[in-house]
Amino acid sequence: MCIHGGDIYRNHIDIDFSISVNPLGMPESVKMALHNAVKLCDKYPDIRAEKLKKAVSKMCDVPEEYLLFGNGASELFMAASHAIKANKTIIPVPTFYGYEYAAMAAGSKVFYYQISRLDNFYLTENINNILTKDVGLIFIANPNNPTGVLLDKETVKSILKHCRDRGIYVVLDESFIEFCGSKFSMLSEIEEFDNLILVRTFTKIFSIPGVRLGYLICKNHALLTKIARQLSEWNLSCFAQEAGCACALQTNFVRKTETYIKKERCFLEDGLRQKGFLVFPSTANFILIYSDKPLYEKLLEKGILIRDCTNFRGLSKGFYRIAVKSRNENKVLLREIGD
Amino acid sequence: MCIHGGDIYRNHIDIDFSISVNPLGMPESVKMALHNAVKLCDKYPDIRAEKLKKAVSKMCDVPEEYLLFGNGASELFMAASHAIKANKTIIPVPTFYGYEYAAMAAGSKVFYYQISRLDNFYLTENINNILTKDVGLIFIANPNNPTGVLLDKETVKSILKHCRDRGIYVVLDESFIEFCGSKFSMLSEIEEFDNLILVRTFTKIFSIPGVRLGYLICKNHALLTKIARQLSEWNLSCFAQEAGCACALQTNFVRKTETYIKKERCFLEDGLRQKGFLVFPSTANFILIYSDKPLYEKLLEKGILIRDCTNFRGLSKGFYRIAVKSRNENKVLLREIGD
Repeated sequence: MCIHGGDIYRNHIDIDFSISVNPLGMPESVKMALHNAVKLCDKYPDIRAEKLKKAVSKMCDVPEEYLLFGNGASELFMAASHAIKANKTIIPVPTFYGYEYAAMAAGSKVFYYQISRLDNFYLTENINNILTKDVGLIFIANPNNPTGVLLDKETVKSILKHCRDRGIYVVLDESFIEFCGSKFSMLSEIEEFDNLILVRTFTKIFSIPGVRLGYLICKNHALLTKIARQLSEWNLSCFAQEAGCACALQTNFVRKTETYIKKERCFLEDGLRQKGFLVFPSTANFILIYSDKPLYEKLLEKGILIRDCTNFRGLSKGFYRIAVKSRNENKVLLREIGD
Repeated sequence: MCIHGGDIYRNHIDIDFSISVNPLGMPESVKMALHNAVKLCDKYPDIRAEKLKKAVSKMCDVPEEYLLFGNGASELFMAASHAIKANKTIIPVPTFYGYEYAAMAAGSKVFYYQISRLDNFYLTENINNILTKDVGLIFIANPNNPTGVLLDKETVKSILKHCRDRGIYVVLDESFIEFCGSKFSMLSEIEEFDNLILVRTFTKIFSIPGVRLGYLICKNHALLTKIARQLSEWNLSCFAQEAGCACALQTNFVRKTETYIKKERCFLEDGLRQKGFLVFPSTANFILIYSDKPLYEKLLEKGILIRDCTNFRGLSKGFYRIAVKSRNENKVLLREIGD
């Protein structure tokens, strides 16, 4: 099994800058919901996840029948790949490894499209040139991971339209969108594109990676049914369902996070630039930097874990992803990372 | 989505005889482990599940490298089906619906083999007649659900050998084996059959259906790798991993359960026979009965849920599955079920 995040289980870590969850932590109500779930878990979880579906439908202002839930977004990528059975899948890189993992599990041939460093890793409409009718599926992360690049809505719409005309499905992964601001989400365009499969997660914004809960929004009922068919039965634990319901009420927390991240990201970016690192423009809760000097091992010795991006397809040695954390933690990083 | 267990989320239920988990409930140490997991779930769960793997390897006395874990046994049925990609899958019926669900998700053609009521639903070696070289996979539940029939080891070995000679994989689902006695498990034969995929779960014996944790044991490394490739990344929550470690230490609890179930099953069987119901011989923690009179609605009105087996392929109207519960609950059932 490939470990592509920071491996906290086989290293001694004091501060983990490799994981990109909310520095404000898990909301108290979510923690309470999880404790409460312990006494529910001697029963089968609701296979229809009715309560959760209602809550998320309200949170996102979409019809309940557009929603599917997964044991993390990862399960949804896998299920979508199996359902679509694309002969050819396009993945713009660098990006999250999970898309490739999912597409290959479904036996699809994967083609990578290099997003240019000269564009500061901004995916341009040039990608449309390779999105031909023989392509079945494309995965796009917005904002992208590990670059932190957020595409503007017009770019995404242009790609969506191009794909729609050619029968290409688009999995748009918005796992980090709340950190940028929900107004950048393509949720507002969900009615317009029946080739759009929007994937989101509770993992990052609510800081619950250990719970496993992602969701998918799609107006195309036939496609949704096919994807649902690839999810295993009772795929959502009681913990996921209870936590999800509590999360869905946390709209203030989400707004507060957006402001917090913006401030701390600027602080961290400025600090890193002052130290001479090449900092790529990010809109998310993590920052991609480039350094000639090796950083990973040096920081690990000090109990600080960052994400060495060498093994990201489309990047090379010298790239690192650093999470935006609390002010005190960010200060420690800036102190220890050296010049 | 098909609801094939008791639907406690859309009915008022006082006692649920439709769910077949341990009447002794969840061990206290498991409850504590689940509460403890709340503070761990702001981190990604260990993608390698090292602690859990060690614990289960010790519990089952099998090498760690024979083990895979799933988000419930359901995810493992699905992953095995996708990995094996059988053109033709055989399912002896009546049995658990999940095998059919999994095989069809993987695009396999499913053929059903009717286990004869005249044999008291005992699967005989006659099934070997249809296990020809064009078959890729067979699912067998031992003990079977909903019949409670436990096959003797010689019968299972005969089928395993027959399949091995013809390149047929066997998913042997032992989800309820602990209630019969672990000595009936084919775990003891795991070294002998590289076509054997043994699936087990923590759900039933430790009464944690809401947690989602199953495991798979197989000595065939190439096959195991293919199955692992069909599991989504971070498929095990922190809750599953922590609960699993606690469960793996509960050997006394498992032994105590076996004795308890034997006694209560006899009590319930005797009571049901005295009331004139046709009771099929069971070795598990549930009993299949047949009744001319409708039972389901009548009991539901009294807040008692039993499993109407009408929609089990291979059964018909009049069959019901009743879980073995605590003495007091069993008495209530016998009182309310009428004559």
